[in-house]
Amino acid sequence: MGTGGSMPTKYRGLPSVVLRRGSELLMFDCGEATQRQMGAAKLGFNKKMRIFISHMHGDHVLGLPGLFQSMSFLGRQQKLEIFGPDGIAEFIEGVNNTVKFNQRFELEVHSINPGKILDAPEYTIIADNLEHGIECLGFTLIEKEKPGRFDLEKARNLQIPEGPLWKKLQAGGTIIIGDKEFGPKDVLGHPRSGSKITYITDTRPCDSALELAKNSTFLIHDSTFDNSKSDKAKECGHSTAQEAATVAKKAQAQNLVLFHISAMYEDASHLLEEAKKIFQDTSLAYDLMKLPIKNP
Amino acid sequence: MGTGGSMPTKYRGLPSVVLRRGSELLMFDCGEATQRQMGAAKLGFNKKMRIFISHMHGDHVLGLPGLFQSMSFLGRQQKLEIFGPDGIAEFIEGVNNTVKFNQRFELEVHSINPGKILDAPEYTIIADNLEHGIECLGFTLIEKEKPGRFDLEKARNLQIPEGPLWKKLQAGGTIIIGDKEFGPKDVLGHPRSGSKITYITDTRPCDSALELAKNSTFLIHDSTFDNSKSDKAKECGHSTAQEAATVAKKAQAQNLVLFHISAMYEDASHLLEEAKKIFQDTSLAYDLMKLPIKNP
Repeated sequence: MGTGGSMPTKYRGLPSVVLRRGSELLMFDCGEATQRQMGAAKLGFNKKMRIFISHMHGDHVLGLPGLFQSMSFLGRQQKLEIFGPDGIAEFIEGVNNTVKFNQRFELEVHSINPGKILDAPEYTIIADNLEHGIECLGFTLIEKEKPGRFDLEKARNLQIPEGPLWKKLQAGGTIIIGDKEFGPKDVLGHPRSGSKITYITDTRPCDSALELAKNSTFLIHDSTFDNSKSDKAKECGHSTAQEAATVAKKAQAQNLVLFHISAMYEDASHLLEEAKKIFQDTSLAYDLMKLPIKNP
Repeated sequence: MGTGGSMPTKYRGLPSVVLRRGSELLMFDCGEATQRQMGAAKLGFNKKMRIFISHMHGDHVLGLPGLFQSMSFLGRQQKLEIFGPDGIAEFIEGVNNTVKFNQRFELEVHSINPGKILDAPEYTIIADNLEHGIECLGFTLIEKEKPGRFDLEKARNLQIPEGPLWKKLQAGGTIIIGDKEFGPKDVLGHPRSGSKITYITDTRPCDSALELAKNSTFLIHDSTFDNSKSDKAKECGHSTAQEAATVAKKAQAQNLVLFHISAMYEDASHLLEEAKKIFQDTSLAYDLMKLPIKNP
């Protein structure tokens, strides 16, 4: 949604990433005006949705109240889940007590600690502490293994008739034909591993960031500054593009996305160049960028 | 800054109007992402500034925290004054207690009641209750009379030498030349009346709106809906374009600006047509529109 840092510019809004996974939206951070970008991206305001907040700096969290207001305005009724560090519940409560909108959906707010923060049927989400001066969490979403692909030839060789019985096997059930019992293992290939999507901002490079990032399909990483500003990155608890690339390389990530670009860069293409010297499969995020994620 | 209502669209941000008066900025409402528009308009974040909030619906107030954060980020040190209805102080306090930014400037928050809410050297600001279902204030800024123009011919005829003595008279002082005393009335024309700028949203047309709007140089008025939606306007406590024009006409305003346009209109030009049938000197606000205001 937005890819800038600290302050919005003409070109970059404040940080927010949405992972669209089937019919569910998973949002990481929600900077001011994220709702407007969601509208532009036509993501919908009535979907199943979970929001993960890295830390309580305003540029990462101030889009929440406006999003709630628009969801209410559009008649959302289903629950919205928010996961964030200490202070997130008080922030939301404080705003909801003073700003008026007819909220008719349930807000389920989780103040989280490092570790496995969510175990959904198809994925887990793990959070860990980053290094940013105040409490700040990185997140990784790990898809669970999926059943292997249905082997048509095997099924035919076993003389299992096409139709409902195939579906039952594919869904993990067992079937009986005559005196023979067949299970999923008879017709399905090897289980397929899912994707791993990691969101790490705002932070210095650190062990926990590296651990979260390991083997990520996509690593979205703080890349606030270029090389010449490495001292400023240390001072402010951010990373340079080169540092982000080093994390991606060490973590053996498949793809790196440079994110949270400082407002000082109108053109940040040199950040991309600096990162690519270390990690080739890098892209520079821009607002409303879409990245298709294909499962292996 | 933003001219939409309730929800941002591709074309219109959330409501905020800035009156630039000399070196001072006077802001009316501060919808989400107003800080980004301020950046685009190059208004500056370190100026003398006063902000007036009409009511506590999120679309009118949720831009404040992000604005405070960016002001802090840019090193603002001088005081910022906020005027608003009940709840404004609690909202700001709640956000500032939970969202982290190193605010180093003083925030002076005034919870206001109808009446004269500010008496500055060059203008007064009057607020009054509107009709919107919740407490909602309209504002009018009335410039005080300015001294008349300096009459060069008169000064020369009185044989007052050009230079410091002219300046002193112009500034309201008296001077003595020989045994003669001269005052401003000897060399200045009639006092000049200032402009009157009125900001009225969100509301049904009402007596207090009309009273605030009387003889305005510019009347910025709620114009959420077109004629076909007049029932909806009543239901939601808003005005149609035609109702805004009727207020402008009755109030003998000089100019009307249609404002707070519903997100349902991608093209709102028919609202302008409807209003112009009643009040010719109407314009339809668009984001970052600039209107020069010349004193009579």
